[in-house]
Amino acid sequence: MNAMTAENLRSAFGGESQAHMRYRVWAKKAEEEGFKNVATLFRAISYAEEVHASNHFEALKDEKGDFLVASGSGFGLGTTSENLQAAADGEMFEVEQMYPAYKAVAEMQGEKLAARFMHYALEAEKTHAELYLKAKDSVDEGKDFNIDSVHVCEICGYTTIDEAPDVCPVCGAKIEKFKAFSE
Amino acid sequence: MNAMTAENLRSAFGGESQAHMRYRVWAKKAEEEGFKNVATLFRAISYAEEVHASNHFEALKDEKGDFLVASGSGFGLGTTSENLQAAADGEMFEVEQMYPAYKAVAEMQGEKLAARFMHYALEAEKTHAELYLKAKDSVDEGKDFNIDSVHVCEICGYTTIDEAPDVCPVCGAKIEKFKAFSE
Ligand SMILES: [Fe+2]
Ligand SMILES: [Fe+2]
Ligand SMILES: [Fe+2]
Ligand SMILES: [Fe+2]
Ligand SMILES: [Fe+2]
Ligand SMILES: [Fe+2]
Repeated sequence: MNAMTAENLRSAFGGESQAHMRYRVWAKKAEEEGFKNVATLFRAISYAEEVHASNHFEALKDEKGDFLVASGSGFGLGTTSENLQAAADGEMFEVEQMYPAYKAVAEMQGEKLAARFMHYALEAEKTHAELYLKAKDSVDEGKDFNIDSVHVCEICGYTTIDEAPDVCPVCGAKIEKFKAFSE
Repeated sequence: MNAMTAENLRSAFGGESQAHMRYRVWAKKAEEEGFKNVATLFRAISYAEEVHASNHFEALKDEKGDFLVASGSGFGLGTTSENLQAAADGEMFEVEQMYPAYKAVAEMQGEKLAARFMHYALEAEKTHAELYLKAKDSVDEGKDFNIDSVHVCEICGYTTIDEAPDVCPVCGAKIEKFKAFSE
């Protein structure tokens, strides 16, 4: 594999693994504050980040060994409103800066699997940013996020509320490939 | 918080988050190869790394913002025997190099909570390295790891097989604080 694509995959793996973990911590905080559906949203999106991290790890399966990995990551344990804003900001950075750059490099280098996984993450993060901002609007009005369930595509991490689509709009997976999260 | 302790906590958070994720991928591989108890061991230790990552994140709770995090991380998807060896090597690096250094810095800087969490991880990683090497011995003889269950302390990540201790030898938590994993 080309060195720059491998380095980008490692960086993205590190960033996704840390987002996965951060969202699990923030889910507990949301639960403590009584926002059970926000907690469900954090847990579902944490799973979507696991899908991304696992995809990147798989694309790197033959690049064996120990590496120093540099990844952007957010820190801090604020109120749930603050945590939702920080989460949305992180997702938007991935949508506007990180994944378009990593996808362009993978395409330029002819790394098809890496390009596909960068594309999946780029599209999925858009749904994450939007859901976090909607949830923040509810929390800022003192209300829990008004949803029944969250559905995550196991193939690409696309995330939606209340009902899974028949076919994933990002990767084309069928409805059976969606994992449901509820309280 | 002192800058060097904060940087070490962020690096350790990144490393633990990536170990958590890597062990989940390797658990699936062990399952595919028919080593169900090795898969259970990987999943249990993955949870222990979540305990470490969450502790480090909590110690950093007031250090808010976005950071570039540099962490050591292993890559590659080999046979289960190879994955167990790579896992043990990573744990031994943490035991011999990373956590003693981070713990010494935290103690020198008077950062008590960070020093305690570095100590917890240092001691827990010893149990991880030992269990991975035992599991590898079984796998190299073509047999699954001969255990009933794995028990992880939710406070410090100390990990043991078959029975949880009455009191955690690392952090003093009672048996109720142990989480059990089995097939
Ligand atoms: Fe992601
Ligand atoms: Fe995301
Ligand atoms: Fe999908
Ligand atoms: Fe650890
Ligand atoms: Fe460990
Ligand atoms: Fe303990």
